Amino acid sequence: RRTGFPEVVMAEGKTPEQVSEALEALLRSEGIAIASRVDPELLDDLEIPEDADVEYDEAGRVLVLKDPEYEPPYRGGRVGAVAAGTSDLPYLSECATVLEALGIEVHTEIDVGVAGPHRLLAAVRRLRKFRPHAVVAAAGMDGTMPVALNAMLDVPVIGLPTPVGYGLGGSGEAALLGMLQSCSPGLVVVNVANGIGAAAAAVKIVRVCLEGEKPSKKPRNSRR
Amino acid sequence: RRTGFPEVVMAEGKTPEQVSEALEALLRSEGIAIASRVDPELLDDLEIPEDADVEYDEAGRVLVLKDPEYEPPYRGGRVGAVAAGTSDLPYLSECATVLEALGIEVHTEIDVGVAGPHRLLAAVRRLRKFRPHAVVAAAGMDGTMPVALNAMLDVPVIGLPTPVGYGLGGSGEAALLGMLQSCSPGLVVVNVANGIGAAAAAVKIVRVCLEGEKPSKKPRNSRR
Amino acid sequence: RRTGFPEVVMAEGKTPEQVSEALEALLRSEGIAIASRVDPELLDDLEIPEDADVEYDEAGRVLVLKDPEYEPPYRGGRVGAVAAGTSDLPYLSECATVLEALGIEVHTEIDVGVAGPHRLLAAVRRLRKFRPHAVVAAAGMDGTMPVALNAMLDVPVIGLPTPVGYGLGGSGEAALLGMLQSCSPGLVVVNVANGIGAAAAAVKIVRVCLEGEKPSKKPRNSRR
Amino acid sequence: RRTGFPEVVMAEGKTPEQVSEALEALLRSEGIAIASRVDPELLDDLEIPEDADVEYDEAGRVLVLKDPEYEPPYRGGRVGAVAAGTSDLPYLSECATVLEALGIEVHTEIDVGVAGPHRLLAAVRRLRKFRPHAVVAAAGMDGTMPVALNAMLDVPVIGLPTPVGYGLGGSGEAALLGMLQSCSPGLVVVNVANGIGAAAAAVKIVRVCLEGEKPSKKPRNSRR
Amino acid sequence: RRTGFPEVVMAEGKTPEQVSEALEALLRSEGIAIASRVDPELLDDLEIPEDADVEYDEAGRVLVLKDPEYEPPYRGGRVGAVAAGTSDLPYLSECATVLEALGIEVHTEIDVGVAGPHRLLAAVRRLRKFRPHAVVAAAGMDGTMPVALNAMLDVPVIGLPTPVGYGLGGSGEAALLGMLQSCSPGLVVVNVANGIGAAAAAVKIVRVCLEGEKPSKKPRNSRR
Amino acid sequence: RRTGFPEVVMAEGKTPEQVSEALEALLRSEGIAIASRVDPELLDDLEIPEDADVEYDEAGRVLVLKDPEYEPPYRGGRVGAVAAGTSDLPYLSECATVLEALGIEVHTEIDVGVAGPHRLLAAVRRLRKFRPHAVVAAAGMDGTMPVALNAMLDVPVIGLPTPVGYGLGGSGEAALLGMLQSCSPGLVVVNVANGIGAAAAAVKIVRVCLEGEKPSKKPRNSRR
Amino acid sequence: RRTGFPEVVMAEGKTPEQVSEALEALLRSEGIAIASRVDPELLDDLEIPEDADVEYDEAGRVLVLKDPEYEPPYRGGRVGAVAAGTSDLPYLSECATVLEALGIEVHTEIDVGVAGPHRLLAAVRRLRKFRPHAVVAAAGMDGTMPVALNAMLDVPVIGLPTPVGYGLGGSGEAALLGMLQSCSPGLVVVNVANGIGAAAAAVKIVRVCLEGEKPSKKPRNSRR
Amino acid sequence: RRTGFPEVVMAEGKTPEQVSEALEALLRSEGIAIASRVDPELLDDLEIPEDADVEYDEAGRVLVLKDPEYEPPYRGGRVGAVAAGTSDLPYLSECATVLEALGIEVHTEIDVGVAGPHRLLAAVRRLRKFRPHAVVAAAGMDGTMPVALNAMLDVPVIGLPTPVGYGLGGSGEAALLGMLQSCSPGLVVVNVANGIGAAAAAVKIVRVCLEGEKPSKKPRNSRR
Ligand SMILES: Nc1ncnc2c1ncn2[C@@H]1O[C@H](COP(=O)(O)O)[C@@H](O)[C@H]1O
Ligand SMILES: Nc1ncnc2c1ncn2[C@@H]1O[C@H](COP(=O)(O)O)[C@@H](O)[C@H]1O
Ligand SMILES: Nc1ncnc2c1ncn2[C@@H]1O[C@H](COP(=O)(O)O)[C@@H](O)[C@H]1O
Ligand SMILES: Nc1ncnc2c1ncn2[C@@H]1O[C@H](COP(=O)(O)O)[C@@H](O)[C@H]1O
Ligand SMILES: [Mg+2]
Ligand SMILES: [Mg+2]
Ligand SMILES: [Mg+2]
Ligand SMILES: [Mg+2]
Ligand SMILES: [Mg+2]
Ligand SMILES: [Mg+2]
Ligand SMILES: [Mg+2]
Ligand SMILES: [Mg+2]
Repeated sequence: RRTGFPEVVMAEGKTPEQVSEALEALLRSEGIAIASRVDPELLDDLEIPEDADVEYDEAGRVLVLKDPEYEPPYRGGRVGAVAAGTSDLPYLSECATVLEALGIEVHTEIDVGVAGPHRLLAAVRRLRKFRPHAVVAAAGMDGTMPVALNAMLDVPVIGLPTPVGYGLGGSGEAALLGMLQSCSPGLVVVNVANGIGAAAAAVKIVRVCLEGEKPSKKPRNSRR
Repeated sequence: RRTGFPEVVMAEGKTPEQVSEALEALLRSEGIAIASRVDPELLDDLEIPEDADVEYDEAGRVLVLKDPEYEPPYRGGRVGAVAAGTSDLPYLSECATVLEALGIEVHTEIDVGVAGPHRLLAAVRRLRKFRPHAVVAAAGMDGTMPVALNAMLDVPVIGLPTPVGYGLGGSGEAALLGMLQSCSPGLVVVNVANGIGAAAAAVKIVRVCLEGEKPSKKPRNSRR
Repeated sequence: RRTGFPEVVMAEGKTPEQVSEALEALLRSEGIAIASRVDPELLDDLEIPEDADVEYDEAGRVLVLKDPEYEPPYRGGRVGAVAAGTSDLPYLSECATVLEALGIEVHTEIDVGVAGPHRLLAAVRRLRKFRPHAVVAAAGMDGTMPVALNAMLDVPVIGLPTPVGYGLGGSGEAALLGMLQSCSPGLVVVNVANGIGAAAAAVKIVRVCLEGEKPSKKPRNSRR
Repeated sequence: RRTGFPEVVMAEGKTPEQVSEALEALLRSEGIAIASRVDPELLDDLEIPEDADVEYDEAGRVLVLKDPEYEPPYRGGRVGAVAAGTSDLPYLSECATVLEALGIEVHTEIDVGVAGPHRLLAAVRRLRKFRPHAVVAAAGMDGTMPVALNAMLDVPVIGLPTPVGYGLGGSGEAALLGMLQSCSPGLVVVNVANGIGAAAAAVKIVRVCLEGEKPSKKPRNSRR
Repeated sequence: RRTGFPEVVMAEGKTPEQVSEALEALLRSEGIAIASRVDPELLDDLEIPEDADVEYDEAGRVLVLKDPEYEPPYRGGRVGAVAAGTSDLPYLSECATVLEALGIEVHTEIDVGVAGPHRLLAAVRRLRKFRPHAVVAAAGMDGTMPVALNAMLDVPVIGLPTPVGYGLGGSGEAALLGMLQSCSPGLVVVNVANGIGAAAAAVKIVRVCLEGEKPSKKPRNSRR
Repeated sequence: RRTGFPEVVMAEGKTPEQVSEALEALLRSEGIAIASRVDPELLDDLEIPEDADVEYDEAGRVLVLKDPEYEPPYRGGRVGAVAAGTSDLPYLSECATVLEALGIEVHTEIDVGVAGPHRLLAAVRRLRKFRPHAVVAAAGMDGTMPVALNAMLDVPVIGLPTPVGYGLGGSGEAALLGMLQSCSPGLVVVNVANGIGAAAAAVKIVRVCLEGEKPSKKPRNSRR
Repeated sequence: RRTGFPEVVMAEGKTPEQVSEALEALLRSEGIAIASRVDPELLDDLEIPEDADVEYDEAGRVLVLKDPEYEPPYRGGRVGAVAAGTSDLPYLSECATVLEALGIEVHTEIDVGVAGPHRLLAAVRRLRKFRPHAVVAAAGMDGTMPVALNAMLDVPVIGLPTPVGYGLGGSGEAALLGMLQSCSPGLVVVNVANGIGAAAAAVKIVRVCLEGEKPSKKPRNSRR
Repeated sequence: RRTGFPEVVMAEGKTPEQVSEALEALLRSEGIAIASRVDPELLDDLEIPEDADVEYDEAGRVLVLKDPEYEPPYRGGRVGAVAAGTSDLPYLSECATVLEALGIEVHTEIDVGVAGPHRLLAAVRRLRKFRPHAVVAAAGMDGTMPVALNAMLDVPVIGLPTPVGYGLGGSGEAALLGMLQSCSPGLVVVNVANGIGAAAAAVKIVRVCLEGEKPSKKPRNSRR
């Protein structure tokens, strides 16, 4: 794939036939086929190739089909996945399932927020030990955890705002705005609930890191 | 005064004559006269009674006139005043100057944010020692510090969002929304840049606390 | 607890098992366990320890479990609870139920708005007699009552905007904005429908007031 | 005029020549010529017909030219004009100057807000005595006064939100939204700072009332 | 009633018992009892006094109960009711039903918009003949009809924006904003879908007009 | 040019050197060079080729340079240009100056709004006689004129919202939203104040119309 | 019809009787009757004249009835219809069905986005060959395709934003704003999901183009 | 530094003394001192250590001071910097100057937009040859270029929205929303005009990539 990230079928708003067909095509051409926003009812109605290895992440509503021969491209990649609260888990799960399907090792930390600084510091210590290439940080409500995390880690942190909350700003806007206004520079964000986008960003970072470890394939002679 | 908080003259949008007159009237009736949003140029044009004690807080643009006999009503009151960054100081200063004019002791902490957890924890330790009746926490940009502070203190924390920032949400909306969505319950807020409102809220808390230390003035027989 | 306010389980978006487990753990460690946004159907599915004292506030959707030995920490605390209209009651009830579970005496006033100034003045008179440490004022639509109340009382008033209304600003934004723009200084607010936050703020004020009545536990030597 | 309200020249964004010309034309055809948003500098540059009676309301920035023979059409009309604070006066003044130029008697009340219920009740008493055909109520910030006034008067109340305030909702949105969400039914509004619109609405009400006092000019035989 | 407009029970969000009780009380004290937002299912569950005259407007979801002796207070009042399209009718109907219950004659015009100028002009001619004290003009989508109508009539026009439309601004915001920005001065508005508010405003205008026709009850000696 | 519309240099935010250079390059390659948002002060500082024909539209702030040999490409094109009020003229002028520079005949109508239906109908009659290929309709405030015009003409109408107005929606949002919600289908819009965009859209329509009048250049054999 | 575009019955929010009646009337007077937003359930309940030719577009929810004698007015018209993704198809289909009912040839391109520049360039080549009078370009999410398309085609491009997406801006606002901010001048837009509006705009362009091919009906002597 | 990115002094809103002092301190402790938003007038007033190497980027308003001994930490790092138009350059320049100060090689591409697909494809080819670790893509108005770029590159792309534009969404909101809604997954964004944030994000990616090329410093034994 041009961007190093496999196409993901957005199942919402498609018929079972359309999703089944798209998955089969991807499975044949790529060896892996992923669909997001797959509700259990839809899952029942899908036509799934008999020879595929099937994994369904119910919380994250992600379906992964693999050719038994499929070789995940990003082995050696490491990504941290941090959730501010348990309500943020489904969004993080969507992201993590895709990362793991591609061979990336994921280290998860849950219930880590600025309201509990000692737990946050402990999680930071474990994350540092894990030496991730990137960290995805999911938070709703005030969205402050990714801001704090980004200040304490020297690896790229991808903020994933979630629609957890209610009242003014409670559909993820407060979290998103807070991350955009981060007082610790370098925090980047994807849109509210976009776990697939966060995964794709992390994959790009992993890819460029792993690439660096191999000898450069073609001589470079850029003239600026 | 009915609410225990003196009237404050909002100088912005008034002529020097109107402000001078209002201040003189308050000085005579209350023994203290406070004006907010007083720019240095306006200050020059004011008619200030010769016998008044004058204090001008340039950063906070607050002018305080006092009768030499004035007895500040809230001696014994203690309020913490915390700023996330130096850019937040003018807004906090407006608040602190008013509190001190009323006899309240103010303990100030500056440059305290979630990006520096050890500095934040140290500030929290000093604040606890100070035993404030309330804490005013000023922050712009992501507005996360008051959320963290409120989680670590058992006294009332009043969030004061500031218009420090730029881009989407940079006029204080991100900070305000973050505080409204606080994951630590009990954080209350006033509007963006409303240092006078934060002071008034803190004064009400101080007043009700000090009141409790004196014997109740009138017998109580509430029938619910 | 660090903040003097017990953890409250937000039941919405959790499974019965998750809620039951969280409640049991809190009951064992704290002697009290509170869950908010508990719908009657969820209530039926919960596993509630046999030895717990159970209270369920249907209007406010709050569930309180107590160890029979539990000693409420804030006896002697007094909080006023005022609703602009009957539609605002569920939000106020969430707040009041939590306050009472912690031992605080709550005085309630209903159907109090600026449209009926004599009723408002009568309620103010009763509230003054009650001598509350704080008042929670719930209002939707135009949200004006808390503004008026704050002008007439010398105790802290916490505005609780409610999503009562329709049309532009009818999900609580008009009420929230009006309170933020309060022409009477010192009104503080929590987010729309955040009865738990209002309770937590009131508890902090009660705590710091009651504390003042006891001899100071440790000598104080803050150096500013 | 078709609507019973004279055309008003909006001077802002027009050259002195354009404004002068438009005023002269109106003066000749209508006997009265009104311009709004006339700054003092603009006034200096205008070409004003020598034979005109000139009135300039500096606060409201309204210029009125009259033919000495002009007969104001709405004598006997009575309109109340109420301002929540002194900062709201310029907006109210724009409205009142136009009303008076048309022969309407205006009764003004200033500094009337929900924060001072006794002053509000006193103003209401005086307004009732005045027996106005309509009342214009100008308020910024929380915009609550027109809501309260509308609840206490049986005549039409026109809310005039003003851009007095700062922070979220401080350009008149909070005031406008509050009036739109008025818990007392029947409050109508014009846009923020639209004193001319408020005057025009009041004139229409006055006109239809005065009309009723005269014998109907043409027989009526509407068949619905 | 203080404002000349009867209290209207907002049925939405109330139990059948609460609505029944409120209606009975109003019926006894006022001779008339009105409830808005009454769905047919709710209607079935209400306890309606046997001796009441009952009227139910299904489109407008308004229920009116009258004592057989009730004497409508505003006989002689005339109000025009204009709808831009048929989708706007329910909102207009809510308004008209209340007006008629109070004795006001209502002249209705439907499907009148700026897209059909000849139909609009014809409606204007009929409205002029009717000689209304006020006109209520309901429009969704672009909301332009009330703007045009207000320019062609010399009586008060009350804009009633409706949530008819979709896409950006389609919940009534475009209609409301357009009316607030009306290029014909004097158009006043109530909130989106607020037919009760429009009725209350029209009643106030009718009342002050009819009043003018009777001899003044008490001598007037206002001193400005 | 690929799109049939010449590149226009947006002068705002560029140095005189940058603008001069860009204009010279366009003049050489295209025979015509246009810059928008050229303030008089900037004009003074520009280096303008001696051999160019120069036209400067002060109201619209557009500068046009032409090679004396330049042959305007759209002779025979006809576009109507309608302004709701005089304040909308600068925005319309920007559009019209560009159209005329390209050889298009422009018929202008001013001060045409729904508030004056007879003037609007007269303008429509004149426009129909002119037989334009397209009409650009500029309006601020309520933005209703383009909606009405689109309903009365069978040629494409391009709505050009202008930032004429004040208060809520007064920066062109009300006008833009109204046009997007147009009850007469087929009205298309460009962004607020985008006279260049309106010109470009009109040019594309003119081009495709004129094209139709010439024999088709290449045989067509599209297979769908 | 005055505008050259037939009236379309918006079925949503109407009863089956109202829709049936409106369709029958249009069929009799115009020879064609179109209804939009017709859900399959509604379709079952409609009374459809026996002699009508019936076409139902399920994806676009459009119903077209034709008199067997009906002569489509725009034969020879050609419109391109481009969808960024399959999720945008229903909105485009609504538009295309109406165009084809009126005799216009429609060339459709699907799954054309800036993420696949080679597919986009190929589609552009096919569109150029088709020589459309106008192109309708439907896109949700980022809405970038119409911007790119408009830059590559010299015919009018009508942007049709769709509510495909989620998170901030995901109801079509991001797509709409992007098109309004188009860096390629001349892109015009209709509101989110307004396929009927896009069809009407395309029809007006087709009509004025076809008109140009016929000899002018009446001599022209416009005096500007 | 904890995050691998040096502290940057935000000069806006600070006095020359405060900026000078902060820069000197950073210079002493880090060997490098950077200030952003430094206007030329401010620059004149700064006290700059004589022994420092000084670089001032006027377009980007960035000031860099270096100890002559300073060793840039990220030599070998490569970042692409792409601007949609010349108006976007200042924002990109702020970012590039900081990157280069830290030793990173920056390859810049200007005037690259979806409106010119061949220029975009050529830029993509040059960028691929450069083999960057990350790409920063600055765009205002419609903000589409970063979306397209992200689809064509397999390295991380950081969208930097700029406030280039006018009308609805013209302060960078349209660009930001478009990037958040990117149909190519993995595009991450920073806030409008936040060139410093984009630089910090790129530095983190460079750092983690370069790190991978060195032998791991400490044995890793994370237990998940
Ligand atoms: N849940 C998701 N959120 C965001 N993008 C997605 C999601 N699922 C799939 N995509 C991406 O959306 C784009 C359009 O998907 P589709 O509508 O299936 O053509 C593809 O680039 C997918 O990679
Ligand atoms: N300050 C004002 N606010 C609102 N409308 C005004 C104001 N001044 C004049 N108008 C009205 O604005 C309309 C357009 O005025 P003009 O732009 O002068 O043609 C006329 O109907 C005036 O009555
Ligand atoms: N006033 C304007 N409004 C909208 N677009 C413009 C304006 N002036 C120039 N443009 C277009 O903006 C694009 C970018 O211009 P530039 O920034 O000069 O490269 C070009 O396609 C111009 O045709
Ligand atoms: N132009 C800028 N945009 C965003 N963040 C900045 C900018 N300049 C400095 N910063 C960061 O803003 C934070 C607060 O800066 P200061 O107000 O100087 O304490 C620091 O983390 C800086 O790295
Ligand atoms: Mg959270
Ligand atoms: Mg901050
Ligand atoms: Mg209320
Ligand atoms: Mg006020
Ligand atoms: Mg309508
Ligand atoms: Mg206009
Ligand atoms: Mg799309
Ligand atoms: Mg751009």
